[in-house]
Amino acid sequence: MDLWFSEHHTPNVKLSIRVDRQLYAGQSEFQRIDVFESPEFGRFLTLDGYMMLTEKDEFIYHEMIVHVPMAVHPNIKKVLVIGAGDGGVIRELTRYDHIEHIDMVEIDPDVVEVCRAYLPKTAGPWLDDPRVHIHYEDGLKFVRTCEDAYDLIIVDSTDPFGPGEGLFTREFYGNCYKALHEDGIMVNQHESPFYDEDAIACQRAHKRIVESFPISRVYQAHIPTYPSGHWLFGFASKKYHPLKDLDEARWNGYGLSCKYYTTTLHKGAFYIPAYVEELLKDVESER
Amino acid sequence: MDLWFSEHHTPNVKLSIRVDRQLYAGQSEFQRIDVFESPEFGRFLTLDGYMMLTEKDEFIYHEMIVHVPMAVHPNIKKVLVIGAGDGGVIRELTRYDHIEHIDMVEIDPDVVEVCRAYLPKTAGPWLDDPRVHIHYEDGLKFVRTCEDAYDLIIVDSTDPFGPGEGLFTREFYGNCYKALHEDGIMVNQHESPFYDEDAIACQRAHKRIVESFPISRVYQAHIPTYPSGHWLFGFASKKYHPLKDLDEARWNGYGLSCKYYTTTLHKGAFYIPAYVEELLKDVESER
Repeated sequence: MDLWFSEHHTPNVKLSIRVDRQLYAGQSEFQRIDVFESPEFGRFLTLDGYMMLTEKDEFIYHEMIVHVPMAVHPNIKKVLVIGAGDGGVIRELTRYDHIEHIDMVEIDPDVVEVCRAYLPKTAGPWLDDPRVHIHYEDGLKFVRTCEDAYDLIIVDSTDPFGPGEGLFTREFYGNCYKALHEDGIMVNQHESPFYDEDAIACQRAHKRIVESFPISRVYQAHIPTYPSGHWLFGFASKKYHPLKDLDEARWNGYGLSCKYYTTTLHKGAFYIPAYVEELLKDVESER
Repeated sequence: MDLWFSEHHTPNVKLSIRVDRQLYAGQSEFQRIDVFESPEFGRFLTLDGYMMLTEKDEFIYHEMIVHVPMAVHPNIKKVLVIGAGDGGVIRELTRYDHIEHIDMVEIDPDVVEVCRAYLPKTAGPWLDDPRVHIHYEDGLKFVRTCEDAYDLIIVDSTDPFGPGEGLFTREFYGNCYKALHEDGIMVNQHESPFYDEDAIACQRAHKRIVESFPISRVYQAHIPTYPSGHWLFGFASKKYHPLKDLDEARWNGYGLSCKYYTTTLHKGAFYIPAYVEELLKDVESER
């Protein structure tokens, strides 16, 4: 059997993964959903043909989008998660005993159902944690109704086209600001700075976040199955600075063991390459 | 025209790059050499079918292998470069006025000739800098004859199989130690920690370096066209610590502008993920 899944990262470069078999293929109201079994990456999920996660490297994305804000804000009790139907963000959040309430707003119930059936490493029993409240709604609309309600918002969106498009708009970031307490933090997946088209999306998202939040920084991780492998996250905050307010002793006191995240790596994740600094500075100065 | 170059990063994953045309194909005494023109990455060089550099992302590798040691050691005058036939390391080194002498030991004269003809962005006029002395010899043999001769050795090798194999041996690292002054530094390309086979090569190289040098650390960069995009370099040193002896003010005083390297990023490059720390610790404790 010589079966390959390929994702074009640009029209001129693609990453291909050998597939053992397809476990699921379906069309939801919102998107095409597929799950594959592969020898290199274990099971992996694609939406509309774009790689969402693989069992081998999802720990990097999920640890980095959750533990970075958790190590900065001293007392996160109420969290809003937009997207995240695969369950990975919820898995990492529910490791913190001091979190009291998690609203997860996923537009597509089929994603959750398929992940529960085929990806138990991310969509596991933590989705049934009594603190987790799943809402099958449009995140864009949900957040419009919230005010001064959350300590942390995690935007675990797909790419800035298709169903996830609205999650990269000025209106959405403004509503997230309003939905957060006065010391709240918003973290979002922020695309890659490397290929031209991704870099433009990244720059555009940063511009809009800078316009909504007083503190806006970008941090990076190595995610081998995402375009270029160099992935960014946005850290937007009303009060806490991602480095000055990092409390290493407090976070290490939680006793959570991670495969990627450490509080030392946390700092390095914000030390981005010169060309990425330039890319972001260009829009910061327009503010 | 639908022409693609592919590199298998493991038998089960491959990166493919659309090719506009092949500029060169030849067999030297040591290896197959090819140069391609591509819409995404500009020109790129492969040896035995393995990606060596592309015009779009070579700056990351070359800046990181050169500027990290240059920002740590206060007075590097004499440098030995093993490999580096593409000229990229020499380009970055010759930007420092205080370097007096560079020995470049490349086993394959054809690589230099082909790069001079087709890759002028790396094999440019700096190869004719009077401080640069090119030796077409086996680096393994060359370094055996040296003692207390260099401030810095840069091992810009191919992978640990084929012509580059000897450059990952205990004997070679021991000879590099001997070839360095009492405060010398050796930096080498150190493979990737992500895919199993690469991780083993990486671990093995680290074990051998730890056995030869009192200070041995690993640092990382995002290199999109290398396997997994997460690439490591080894920093081995007799005296200087890569972070404690980093002199940011001195390096910034040189006024070199880089696209990837900054002295802030320098620090973050050593803040490696938990699983990579584990991988290296395993062999450090065997020492």
